[in-house]
Amino acid sequence: MPTTSDDCIFCKIVAGELPARIVRQDERTIAFMDIAPATYGHTLVIPRNHTRDLLEIEPEDLQAVAVAAQQVAARASERFGAAGINLINSCGSAAWQTVFHFHMHVIPRYNDDPLRLPWVPAQGDPDEIATAAAQLIG
Amino acid sequence: MPTTSDDCIFCKIVAGELPARIVRQDERTIAFMDIAPATYGHTLVIPRNHTRDLLEIEPEDLQAVAVAAQQVAARASERFGAAGINLINSCGSAAWQTVFHFHMHVIPRYNDDPLRLPWVPAQGDPDEIATAAAQLIG
Repeated sequence: MPTTSDDCIFCKIVAGELPARIVRQDERTIAFMDIAPATYGHTLVIPRNHTRDLLEIEPEDLQAVAVAAQQVAARASERFGAAGINLINSCGSAAWQTVFHFHMHVIPRYNDDPLRLPWVPAQGDPDEIATAAAQLIG
Repeated sequence: MPTTSDDCIFCKIVAGELPARIVRQDERTIAFMDIAPATYGHTLVIPRNHTRDLLEIEPEDLQAVAVAAQQVAARASERFGAAGINLINSCGSAAWQTVFHFHMHVIPRYNDDPLRLPWVPAQGDPDEIATAAAQLIG
């Protein structure tokens, strides 16, 4: 069983207590669609174990997240025709972290997309997110 | 010997043919100061092996980079009093990659710092970079 924190929304996703469009999982990690995507296909990779941030995550979990993020990036590149990918981790409020369970953003990039950071998250189109999830799975 | 690319400036840093302020190294990675820092202490972690980007890097090198970046982040947090850290990898021109040897940015963050992405790199103050390097080493 992973370590959990009672009031953590990402732990609730790991436990299946909150819905999420999960596109990849392994023993240590899960990857699911960001509900406020910065670009088409924006995905988050998290460790199953609750861990606040980069300074606290166990190296083994960090390694697993990195490899999972690489695999999601490869799928995004192939399946969305993304022109590039950004991996971003935010550690601490000063670095734009808002959910305090470690997460790596996998952000597909497209020529001339409007991404600027910090972006202001806004609820995405659920149908579009579902379509992207279906493309990324498996 | 790492795999190299003749016209790659980061391979020349790995080979000792171009100067850099190296602050950490291990069998697979080196970390050195960005000469155009986005914030005080901005560091790059790269694999010794030449590899273009996230889509091409060997998972073992990626894991080693991730753990090295975490260690640099911990030092930056302790020694600079950074309020946060961003890890950023740019894969492809569309994602702001400019040097085509995989690199993970470790960007210390400070309350109310002016970082916005994409930033426009400008040559940093060499003395300030040297001071930050001395703080990060060892």
